[in-house]
Amino acid sequence: MGKRILVLVGDGMADRFEPDRGETPLQAADVPNMDELARRGSTGLMDPIRPGVRPGSDTAHLALLGYDPFKVYPGRGPLEALGAGVEVRPGDVAFRCNFATVRREDGDLIVEDRRAGRISEKEGTPELARAVNEEVDLPVEFEFREAVGHRAVLVLRGDGLSADVTDADPKRPGRPVKEVKPTSDDPAAERTAEIVNEFIRRAHEVLENHPINEERRKRGLPPANAILPRGAGRLRRVEGFEERHGMSGAVVAGASLIKGIGRMLDMTVPEDEGITGRKDTDLRRKAELALRCLEEHEFVLVNFNAVDEMGHDGDFRGKVEMLERMDRELVGRILDEVDPSEVVVCLTADHSTPVTVGDHTADPVPVAIWTDDARRDDVERFDEVSVARGCLGRFPGLRLMDVLKDLADRLEKFGA
Amino acid sequence: MGKRILVLVGDGMADRFEPDRGETPLQAADVPNMDELARRGSTGLMDPIRPGVRPGSDTAHLALLGYDPFKVYPGRGPLEALGAGVEVRPGDVAFRCNFATVRREDGDLIVEDRRAGRISEKEGTPELARAVNEEVDLPVEFEFREAVGHRAVLVLRGDGLSADVTDADPKRPGRPVKEVKPTSDDPAAERTAEIVNEFIRRAHEVLENHPINEERRKRGLPPANAILPRGAGRLRRVEGFEERHGMSGAVVAGASLIKGIGRMLDMTVPEDEGITGRKDTDLRRKAELALRCLEEHEFVLVNFNAVDEMGHDGDFRGKVEMLERMDRELVGRILDEVDPSEVVVCLTADHSTPVTVGDHTADPVPVAIWTDDARRDDVERFDEVSVARGCLGRFPGLRLMDVLKDLADRLEKFGA
Repeated sequence: MGKRILVLVGDGMADRFEPDRGETPLQAADVPNMDELARRGSTGLMDPIRPGVRPGSDTAHLALLGYDPFKVYPGRGPLEALGAGVEVRPGDVAFRCNFATVRREDGDLIVEDRRAGRISEKEGTPELARAVNEEVDLPVEFEFREAVGHRAVLVLRGDGLSADVTDADPKRPGRPVKEVKPTSDDPAAERTAEIVNEFIRRAHEVLENHPINEERRKRGLPPANAILPRGAGRLRRVEGFEERHGMSGAVVAGASLIKGIGRMLDMTVPEDEGITGRKDTDLRRKAELALRCLEEHEFVLVNFNAVDEMGHDGDFRGKVEMLERMDRELVGRILDEVDPSEVVVCLTADHSTPVTVGDHTADPVPVAIWTDDARRDDVERFDEVSVARGCLGRFPGLRLMDVLKDLADRLEKFGA
Repeated sequence: MGKRILVLVGDGMADRFEPDRGETPLQAADVPNMDELARRGSTGLMDPIRPGVRPGSDTAHLALLGYDPFKVYPGRGPLEALGAGVEVRPGDVAFRCNFATVRREDGDLIVEDRRAGRISEKEGTPELARAVNEEVDLPVEFEFREAVGHRAVLVLRGDGLSADVTDADPKRPGRPVKEVKPTSDDPAAERTAEIVNEFIRRAHEVLENHPINEERRKRGLPPANAILPRGAGRLRRVEGFEERHGMSGAVVAGASLIKGIGRMLDMTVPEDEGITGRKDTDLRRKAELALRCLEEHEFVLVNFNAVDEMGHDGDFRGKVEMLERMDRELVGRILDEVDPSEVVVCLTADHSTPVTVGDHTADPVPVAIWTDDARRDDVERFDEVSVARGCLGRFPGLRLMDVLKDLADRLEKFGA
């Protein structure tokens, strides 16, 4: 039996040189536990996808889990649907949706608020979703479900469907809901576009006079009287994580996109109310959950999303704080608990989200890998520059799983 | 809008350890501006094509510009023709040629001087080329044009042509002009070989008694009475630089091969008499031209060829001098002028030309990349060994463009 594997992902943790501060957030942060991991283990640089590709969190996590995103990435719709707990099967076409507020004008639906006043689950989106599911009739099977806040997901099921269709969301208020159009010559794309347009019309009819919306109007709130699908994607049939790697696996994450990745690969994805994927997440609880998962699974990936959020906000100080929180509440706890003769621990990022850019970039990310017999280099700091002198050099993210399985003694020999 | 990108290429700048000197030319040279670039930016090693492939300047530049040379390299003929300013279209077959001196013997043409006494443009090669163009008749459209010195180019145009043919140049005096033969079973190769042999015969008839050659004989100079084509290549249809990268691009170079690469990719390639591609080039003028191009284009590549020449000559001292000249006249000027909040600057080589070898080798080349938020490592010298500890690690030349576009904020995200 090989060792178990624990991967800690600081989402968007890596960064660039911030000219005014003269360093990166990781260099500025006080992260003694991450540094300790670097000291005890092997360090290096990793290209989540490849040099000069700006990864999404979804495509990067696929690579880190050993799946080539160029081959298996299904688009965002199916991942958000899976993340929201909706079943998505290979062949299904799924969309992310917003509850929105529209008014009728000359037969058009004009978007007044893309988020229906940021309506939430507590304000009745589950009831609205149930009404749409029960009262709308389409020529294919479908499931519509509320997600976090004003968000929702739509899954179409059946033969003759395609994900080659445009978005309905006009992205800006004051514009009409866009007619969904096919983007390929495939007759299935034409048919899918028609079905989605029909869904939008029927859903509006169901929602327009729904009691929840009548109530909202009375209270001066924008009604959630329309649904705007976007990000069509189709789930392909892929080998599950356990089948591919010979290990049972779990993903501990709050962000629905990352939970969706885990579910797409048939991994265990625990639900926990305290784990939100945002700044308010209970990270200590996440650490405990990860340790519990590690008792029942041979592989666990933990994602901490709030670091990425700070990068998107361009908030250097906030990013430093989130890094320090991750260091204390997650990495420190793991260092205390894990026995390196039984577990391989890897600390890394899925991509860089530099505060100077406010979005993901292709810069390589730092990696530290610790187990009792992993080579020790003389790197003493976990940051983007220090690890470049480490004993792992620079390698592709798609190879990470095999590198970890090798250290866990879970690889077959090629040759004699 | 993203930043602009400026790439400075010291042709063949990288080298090996010279056992008698105990260092490489870059280590021996006093290059404070290159060192400053290394200090301010990210450094690393790059494999122009891949480890263990000895690149030509042409194949390496294709890779550095984001084109896989294994897929698009057209051979040297079309690049030299484009470099000489001749139009070459996709499908055309082009040859590099020499004006040569031959004598008739038993029906053979015996080469007496492969370079016709190093005849030059000033000695009438344009008139000789014009006579050949006007008086030779072939079953396909063609263009023959003088290039630098004793060199010339031949472009064949039309259907049913192939580049699978041998050279006419016997490479050594005293030997007959070689009959051009097909190297594949393609009937087009057989036909092309016949056409080139016919061209050689007819061109000899036109040139043998041309007044310029009569005059040369009178003055005791070898007549330019034959043309020796070699290096057949066919231009493939490739996506232009702007189409591929979404940036308008310019190549500032003296060497016709590098100018040919720029023209093959539909980039701006300014002509300037002071820029020769040799040791006598006006490098300060080239720096000004590059800065001017950078006002009108989003991407500029500058090539300094004289460093490579010194490597081919095995001249350590000469190479050090050329490196110091490049440092003062080109890199220093760029450092003074460029605003790193608006431009990404990359200093590198297209390949190594070690003075110990006198030819190109596969050794990786140093890279320094500087822009305001590029990660800063602690490398303080720009040489083959120091940069190996830098924060870029080692990466393939084919990825350089995307790495630079990422830093220039010109890449789309893959995923969410």
